[in-house]
Amino acid sequence: MAVNLPLPIPEKLTAVRGVELGHAEAGIRKVNRKDVLVLKLASTATVAGVFTKNRFCAAPVQLCKAHLGSLRADAPIRALVINTGNANAGTGESGLANAQATCDALADLLDCAPTQILPFSTGVILEPLPVDRLVAGLPQAIANLQTDNWYNAAQSIMTTDTQPKAASRQVVIGGQTITLTGISKGAGMIKPNMATMLGFLAMDAKVAQPVLEQMTRDVADRSFNCITIDGDTSTNDSFIVMATGAAALEVNSTTSAEYAALYEAVLGLSQELAQMIVRDGEGATKFMTVTIEEGKDVEECRKIAYSIAHSPLVKTAFFASDPNLGRILAAIGYAGIDDLDVGKIDLYLDDVLVAKSGGRNPDYQEADGQRVMKQSEITIRVKLGRGKADATIWTCDLSHEYVSINADYRS
Amino acid sequence: MAVNLPLPIPEKLTAVRGVELGHAEAGIRKVNRKDVLVLKLASTATVAGVFTKNRFCAAPVQLCKAHLGSLRADAPIRALVINTGNANAGTGESGLANAQATCDALADLLDCAPTQILPFSTGVILEPLPVDRLVAGLPQAIANLQTDNWYNAAQSIMTTDTQPKAASRQVVIGGQTITLTGISKGAGMIKPNMATMLGFLAMDAKVAQPVLEQMTRDVADRSFNCITIDGDTSTNDSFIVMATGAAALEVNSTTSAEYAALYEAVLGLSQELAQMIVRDGEGATKFMTVTIEEGKDVEECRKIAYSIAHSPLVKTAFFASDPNLGRILAAIGYAGIDDLDVGKIDLYLDDVLVAKSGGRNPDYQEADGQRVMKQSEITIRVKLGRGKADATIWTCDLSHEYVSINADYRS
Repeated sequence: MAVNLPLPIPEKLTAVRGVELGHAEAGIRKVNRKDVLVLKLASTATVAGVFTKNRFCAAPVQLCKAHLGSLRADAPIRALVINTGNANAGTGESGLANAQATCDALADLLDCAPTQILPFSTGVILEPLPVDRLVAGLPQAIANLQTDNWYNAAQSIMTTDTQPKAASRQVVIGGQTITLTGISKGAGMIKPNMATMLGFLAMDAKVAQPVLEQMTRDVADRSFNCITIDGDTSTNDSFIVMATGAAALEVNSTTSAEYAALYEAVLGLSQELAQMIVRDGEGATKFMTVTIEEGKDVEECRKIAYSIAHSPLVKTAFFASDPNLGRILAAIGYAGIDDLDVGKIDLYLDDVLVAKSGGRNPDYQEADGQRVMKQSEITIRVKLGRGKADATIWTCDLSHEYVSINADYRS
Repeated sequence: MAVNLPLPIPEKLTAVRGVELGHAEAGIRKVNRKDVLVLKLASTATVAGVFTKNRFCAAPVQLCKAHLGSLRADAPIRALVINTGNANAGTGESGLANAQATCDALADLLDCAPTQILPFSTGVILEPLPVDRLVAGLPQAIANLQTDNWYNAAQSIMTTDTQPKAASRQVVIGGQTITLTGISKGAGMIKPNMATMLGFLAMDAKVAQPVLEQMTRDVADRSFNCITIDGDTSTNDSFIVMATGAAALEVNSTTSAEYAALYEAVLGLSQELAQMIVRDGEGATKFMTVTIEEGKDVEECRKIAYSIAHSPLVKTAFFASDPNLGRILAAIGYAGIDDLDVGKIDLYLDDVLVAKSGGRNPDYQEADGQRVMKQSEITIRVKLGRGKADATIWTCDLSHEYVSINADYRS
């Protein structure tokens, strides 16, 4: 039941020069299913990533951080390897050894060092990774490496996703046409705290390593770090931005006009990919934008936005298209802002002013709330009347289907 | 679908000398339904309460705080009045006027000052209280005031509760038999932050006002403040302890042996009443105890306990009796304890050691986890290995029924 989520059209996903993708059916958890993806990069590429802040961060995430943390210019990242069906999280030392074995095997096949590989896993936590099957699937993935393979790549990283998530865009910067294509996955255990599980974005610009790192952090904070489905921050969240350097555009500073233009393009595509995850949220029937305005700082705006977005009572009311909007006030009230003056708060549902100065707007008619609640896309807007900061996050409703999916995810 | 929640037996609810209870059908939201309760107290009674920390605290809660905050010995609290069907929250100035009008009307009928009345409301937020119908119902409630009316009282405060919640106990302290009886209500919007919506406990001991206040705060922190159903802190949470002074026992200090004995009795009864709310949690099929041990301080233990108890993924796995226990590790990991060393963490499900030193226990068999998951009462125990503090909270699972109930609560 995805919400206004267009199925990506393979022909509209633009190849990015310097990126080849190959998938395999390795039988990690189920047979006859694409479950391994290898993404091979040109030797000119720079790569940056942000990862989950969950303390139980998965073994592959630990290796990714180590490999990106000790990058040398003469030994760039050459490939990413992603498996579904098993998260390799909560697996202790043997989990780390399995992730390492995966990197070793792919490095052998690609003739590079294991530190030039970034590994990713997604699936069930606390179960041993079937590393033998994963490694056995790598030659198949390498055999079908192609630049024009983004659609299959998006399919290969799906778990409870109902459809692949991918998008492309092209921008002209400094007279150069730059191509960006990204894929993402995730539908549950989604409240990224750094980035989401999983987002990969490639472009053919040439971007200096520190510049790409800054861009990745800033973009993550305004895209993947602004979505939530169930408030569960995954052990495996990863968002990776790759700049292959195949195009003539070079971006070496965060203060240049080229940086600003590229940043906007990367941000726009990242927000699109992040919102796709919410649109495909487990059991989602509504796509909700929560905007908090006039806060003292961004942090309190985000706190209130998440308090609303995580409230099971708010989420079920939206599922029912029931304008039981007092539940939003309750969620604002318990967000933990101790000095909040509720007498200054206005609440809008799209264009409808529901609550004014902390009480019901005398002109509010339930029919107006009902009209908005029936839409598939709704904006909840709260004005706090205490400052100039604002924040926006995206979320979905809580339906029977969410319970069904998660009550038998493993079966 | 309440979990092991015995229906209270009217004959087993012991009258407390100094307390009379009368109910009415006032048609606040629905007709032919007990929806108003008046609880009248002896003039010798002391009363203490704790209330929600939700910033959108309801109009009656604001009046309760004001009346208890300016108590004078010569003008004690004489009555409580509780209505269901409307929370009188998010109602601004007119809500306060309506709560005041309720106190004024009851004070007239009982010949006391309005400040000697404590008002309570529970139901839908953001809708005007039909104060005329409420006031019109008061004479009916007063006409049937009786000491032996606790069962009807428990029924009168129900909303989405599937059954009334009430319990009694008697203890002998200093040769005196002390009787305690309490009632509670609530099944959704339950994550009390001070006390829950609503708990009332009366006893016939004589307890000095400051002593009763201290006892009430301490008991709330170990009973009603240790439960959660959906993480939504209500606008109306209130927990009230009344000591009528009808018995000969006098407790004038928090350091006496009598205080300790009475505290244990009040705590035991309060925990029973609080757990009844969880057992009757909206759609609940499992009663879960979450105990975090070996933490640095109680605060971090509670943080982790709530992170587990609020995770929709953990809750749906328990609904399904599916030992998908990696979800518990994920919830521990994102609880926000930045220096948590996951390599020291052990996870038990009842007596089964599931994860050891942060990874899967090599001896763990899924059949053992499955056996425990099928029970209706389950303890999740986490050892952090970093200190001596601990905390316990009680919660329930997340089922289809929760979504059904909250998707049409108002209809």
